[in-house]
Amino acid sequence: MSWLDDLKWDRDGLVPVVAQELASGDVLMVAWMNRDALEQTATNGEAVYWSRSRGRLWRKGETSGHVQKVHEIRLDCDADVVLLKVTQTGHEPGIACHTGRHSCFFQRYEAGSWRTVEPVLKDPETIYR
Amino acid sequence: MSWLDDLKWDRDGLVPVVAQELASGDVLMVAWMNRDALEQTATNGEAVYWSRSRGRLWRKGETSGHVQKVHEIRLDCDADVVLLKVTQTGHEPGIACHTGRHSCFFQRYEAGSWRTVEPVLKDPETIYR
Repeated sequence: MSWLDDLKWDRDGLVPVVAQELASGDVLMVAWMNRDALEQTATNGEAVYWSRSRGRLWRKGETSGHVQKVHEIRLDCDADVVLLKVTQTGHEPGIACHTGRHSCFFQRYEAGSWRTVEPVLKDPETIYR
Repeated sequence: MSWLDDLKWDRDGLVPVVAQELASGDVLMVAWMNRDALEQTATNGEAVYWSRSRGRLWRKGETSGHVQKVHEIRLDCDADVVLLKVTQTGHEPGIACHTGRHSCFFQRYEAGSWRTVEPVLKDPETIYR
């Protein structure tokens, strides 16, 4: 699979992956992929990441049902970061964050501290059963 | 500076940073910051990264003049990825990539290979003098 060899995997065999919502342009999350995760993502059209905390492949939505449909896979100039254009399924608007928020980037820097500026759309207790 | 202590810096003291163009929503690039880079970025409102290849702070645009004006700094749920909303100055449309392209994510996966799908807006030879 030469297209997988084109990537510069880091010392852990991973690359960071940005998931951007196709319709809104919102950056939903950044996670990590290894070779297997990227290959499965390209093959099946649904995002599979490598969970560094759990040390295993993590099919986005495997517990929540909030699968990420992948429309496009991009690679950057240094071949060490991937960008996905996705539809975040399972809720409207899409919930990408484990806190029940639309995007993982819900904290904004304001005058020396981080302020939460995005609402919880659904209680995580009811998402992860 | 407690807001800098809120981040989970990796074993090299870095976090990945996504630069997203405010006006278009385009993801322009992903680079890295250390503490100093993030502090300077927040203080001056212009993006400063840590260059892993050169092992030093890298003020975006220091050679090209293509400075990134920073409108907003976001932090993700795990506190280990930063998202900047920026205006890419110095050219219209903005050129964030050292190849002279708008975005670093100019390669698209298509049926087993990476295809370049974005044009060079300006010859890099004329950007980096």
